[in-house]
Amino acid sequence: MADTAVLLDGKETSKVLLEKVAREASQFAQGDLPKLVAVLVGHDPASEVYVARKMKVAAQLGLASELLRLPDSIETAQLQAEIQYLNQDPHTHAILVQLPLPKQIDTLAVLQTVAVEKDVDGFHPENLGKLLMGIEPVAMPCTPAGIIYLLDAYKIPMAGKRVAVVGRSIIVGKPITLMLTHRNATVTLCHSKTRDLDGILRESEMIIAAAGQPGLIQADAVQPGAVVVDVGINRLPSGRLVGDVDFEALKVKAGYMTPVPGGVGPMTIAMLMYNTLRLYQYQQGLKVERLLLV
Amino acid sequence: MADTAVLLDGKETSKVLLEKVAREASQFAQGDLPKLVAVLVGHDPASEVYVARKMKVAAQLGLASELLRLPDSIETAQLQAEIQYLNQDPHTHAILVQLPLPKQIDTLAVLQTVAVEKDVDGFHPENLGKLLMGIEPVAMPCTPAGIIYLLDAYKIPMAGKRVAVVGRSIIVGKPITLMLTHRNATVTLCHSKTRDLDGILRESEMIIAAAGQPGLIQADAVQPGAVVVDVGINRLPSGRLVGDVDFEALKVKAGYMTPVPGGVGPMTIAMLMYNTLRLYQYQQGLKVERLLLV
Repeated sequence: MADTAVLLDGKETSKVLLEKVAREASQFAQGDLPKLVAVLVGHDPASEVYVARKMKVAAQLGLASELLRLPDSIETAQLQAEIQYLNQDPHTHAILVQLPLPKQIDTLAVLQTVAVEKDVDGFHPENLGKLLMGIEPVAMPCTPAGIIYLLDAYKIPMAGKRVAVVGRSIIVGKPITLMLTHRNATVTLCHSKTRDLDGILRESEMIIAAAGQPGLIQADAVQPGAVVVDVGINRLPSGRLVGDVDFEALKVKAGYMTPVPGGVGPMTIAMLMYNTLRLYQYQQGLKVERLLLV
Repeated sequence: MADTAVLLDGKETSKVLLEKVAREASQFAQGDLPKLVAVLVGHDPASEVYVARKMKVAAQLGLASELLRLPDSIETAQLQAEIQYLNQDPHTHAILVQLPLPKQIDTLAVLQTVAVEKDVDGFHPENLGKLLMGIEPVAMPCTPAGIIYLLDAYKIPMAGKRVAVVGRSIIVGKPITLMLTHRNATVTLCHSKTRDLDGILRESEMIIAAAGQPGLIQADAVQPGAVVVDVGINRLPSGRLVGDVDFEALKVKAGYMTPVPGGVGPMTIAMLMYNTLRLYQYQQGLKVERLLLV
């Protein structure tokens, strides 16, 4: 074991994946490029930042992209009609609905409206259900898929490992529990109602922290040499961005860990681009690269 | 703690549920009864037994039922055409495809063909995906739903409990992991590649054994007072039916446990009948009782 944890560099790893997407996209003619459409309802500041970043990266890669802005006051049916229009549009290959949606919107109904074959976030229940069945849908949720990709890039074995996943969202916690289980890890899915979280963490060789709570994972609850993946992105009153993990203390205890920023975040965006490419390939009848599951 | 485990009596508990289904079904006119159609491909002996039992119980309750037998040699497309016919039939409200299907059949494609609103086993990926999202589909997989129902009948709390689920099938292990997580339990999903299963069992206040391996769960790996649910149905060379759990030894150690037979098995069938009723209610625009998730 090294004195200092190996940093799982999401920035570098995502670069390789993004270059691959750019290379493949460059083979397609202008006017028939893979196109990602992001649907943004309202002006939530965090959502604005995320969407702007996604659009920027898509443009850098030479993908077509579009930001569809809709008013905060929109009703579910209207939003669904907008999505149905995109479903029909042959030039739109990937549709992303930026979450969270305003309170008056039925989020499930909206996610179900996105055509299964254009669902770039993998949040359509049919795509989530395939994931549960161990059958890889064309697109899987970007954050957990990005984490698996990052672990693979560093050749970190998952089979047989005890893993604690902290947080049970559909965006990270539940899908990564399934992905890791299919990779033969033994996963304990922890959440806000878990008693003795620290006891569970101590038994774990790998921790996926996705609770959105700064300082939740302290060094004294982590095995020496453990793999620690920090999905949290929390802004402190000082303005500094931190994850859920006490980075400074763990840096000298963990075996591998992701920095925040520069760890999981860039992998999420890269996976979104890769999903866009793969949905395009699927819709064009081209060969689609498989990603994760056997 | 009692000297002897309280037996979770699936036979008695299922009776109450079945009576409720019979009572509600009796309100509907002949000719417009809830109807369950079972599709049986080939003559697998275990499948024959299960399907015969399901048909018998449906008849006893006053539900309409039909067994559609198809040859072992059928191809996926032909099987799908048969299911599509049932999907269209207004007198068929619930469709069950008995698993496993023969090797030449694409099981996912078949499960996806069953109309989402007639999917009595809850195995359509869209229904499994909703379950993952924590949104209760009309019908959920019968065995895990039956287990939750049984635990509720005995007022066994799940929130905050450490639970080991052993076995990662789509029939039991993965869906019950999600259901228990939504009920605020902390679940470790174990399987054939899990190292130190006994260590994990010892930490667990509840065990759901669904591996199909007689003797897998021995008393020395179980906490005194633990809740032990045995989903295994294994026939020994002697002809005797046993679960995955060493029943005799655990009887004086566990707090609650299910017998085999007479535990989870009857709950599975009762849930199938209840799902049939509820799918019918849904299709008729009647009020559908919610079952498990908030």
